[in-house]
Amino acid sequence: MAETAIVVHGGAGRVPTDPERLERMRTGAASGVEAGYAVLAEGGSALDAVEAAVVVLEDDPAFNAGRGAALTADGGVELDASVMEGTGGFVGAVACVEGVRNPVRAAHAVLRDGHHVLLVGSAARAFASEHGVELCDPSWLVTDGQRGVLASGDLGWAAGTVGAVARDRDGRLAAATSTGGTMGKRRGRVGDSPLIGAGTWADDASVAVSCTGDGEAIIRAAMAHEVDALVRLGRLSLEQACAQALAKLDRRGGHGGLIAVSAAGEATARFSSPGMTRGWRVGDGPVHTAVGAG
Amino acid sequence: MAETAIVVHGGAGRVPTDPERLERMRTGAASGVEAGYAVLAEGGSALDAVEAAVVVLEDDPAFNAGRGAALTADGGVELDASVMEGTGGFVGAVACVEGVRNPVRAAHAVLRDGHHVLLVGSAARAFASEHGVELCDPSWLVTDGQRGVLASGDLGWAAGTVGAVARDRDGRLAAATSTGGTMGKRRGRVGDSPLIGAGTWADDASVAVSCTGDGEAIIRAAMAHEVDALVRLGRLSLEQACAQALAKLDRRGGHGGLIAVSAAGEATARFSSPGMTRGWRVGDGPVHTAVGAG
Repeated sequence: MAETAIVVHGGAGRVPTDPERLERMRTGAASGVEAGYAVLAEGGSALDAVEAAVVVLEDDPAFNAGRGAALTADGGVELDASVMEGTGGFVGAVACVEGVRNPVRAAHAVLRDGHHVLLVGSAARAFASEHGVELCDPSWLVTDGQRGVLASGDLGWAAGTVGAVARDRDGRLAAATSTGGTMGKRRGRVGDSPLIGAGTWADDASVAVSCTGDGEAIIRAAMAHEVDALVRLGRLSLEQACAQALAKLDRRGGHGGLIAVSAAGEATARFSSPGMTRGWRVGDGPVHTAVGAG
Repeated sequence: MAETAIVVHGGAGRVPTDPERLERMRTGAASGVEAGYAVLAEGGSALDAVEAAVVVLEDDPAFNAGRGAALTADGGVELDASVMEGTGGFVGAVACVEGVRNPVRAAHAVLRDGHHVLLVGSAARAFASEHGVELCDPSWLVTDGQRGVLASGDLGWAAGTVGAVARDRDGRLAAATSTGGTMGKRRGRVGDSPLIGAGTWADDASVAVSCTGDGEAIIRAAMAHEVDALVRLGRLSLEQACAQALAKLDRRGGHGGLIAVSAAGEATARFSSPGMTRGWRVGDGPVHTAVGAG
């Protein structure tokens, strides 16, 4: 029986200076870990564990995903999410979807249905509705906090993309990523989170990875699949592979971070940005959380 | 000075039994090769060469891209395209765009602009318009031939995705892919063609690749980036790498093909489907075209 592991991230970016905000990030990450762990502890699948973890993070307005996501230039919310399981390499993703409470559930519905990989815009919402995924009023996803950030014009880096990776008792791996994208983005812009191989990858024989950071540079580095390739073909340890993938991201002019678990039993969270909100639990060990370096 | 090479494909799929149709595929592929070769012969960039080749293939109603593309379930045309150049790893892509005559030009405009990687739907069309890319009436892209195929209900495999890869005098590599997707598709469905790492990849130090075939399975194999990884990390020849990537596609339950050039001077076209329309010209050698095996 494999040692279970769940790792979550709440986005790479600056480390909040406000202690209250910092605490919200840490407790949010811990809640995500606990939701994922609960699935794994009951013998559930890595795929269900990463979905459960990401749902909690999407529902938490402290993060840039689901309710409280970054806003488009015109003040709306367009959400992106993807999931991948490593046994059959099945995937599902949605992008630029409005009025879906938990885009990761819509992505999982795409995976289960099996006909498509990526659905965008109103088609993604219609698909979610047809498959019993909870819809919401698009305006419900917009928080006063994010309205304030957009109005301030200090768009900076809309940190807070969320993700999870897990290994279950049967050694299966899975990854999920969800985001509102960049603050003030053009409608119709798609970043790395819903793109398989860029923001998300999973293969039971190798690794499961979820990325966060400069989305365009992450796509140009094919970062999640690069970690897989470095472990599978380059024979690197997970730590070395993640470090090399971040170096490639740097050569693409981007910063960010990633969380990963491996078939070999490793689990890690690495980043080249000042900080990355993260939490993890390996086996029945304690829940760890961190935001800054070290 | 590197030996120039241009390879194009007009889609993997069945080999047409109608000799007239077969001839249209071959002459179309030859025209694409000549357009790309003309750019390379004048000392132009690999990026401009693949765009020139794909524009010719998009304009040719014999192929499933641009005018004459496969239709959505409701009889419209939603186009996808991407480009990548291998020097800086810069990319551009559009998906589900309507009323743009040459989506590859829109993708190239996204690359040149540099702010985004992938724009979808009406945002992609608005971006194209802002950047001087020719728009058209969406209905101009719909041909009677494709209306007939949709009406026949024999949707089969909408072959005819197009792509090009090139190596220029300076050893720079580039790749481009363009498609209308699957016949009778749901609006908002995105396949591999506009996804960097799935349908398209380029790295001057390694390879440039354009894929065609079962789009969902190609995404799940990260096929274009897998070829790059097998050459760069696995130290395989281009032929071996393409064969292994197609074997991975097979394990994902899909068939298709790819064209590729390498930094080492190789050029190839391989497929696991019954046929793939293709054409190539290496250095100042003759133009070759083929559709079936061998």
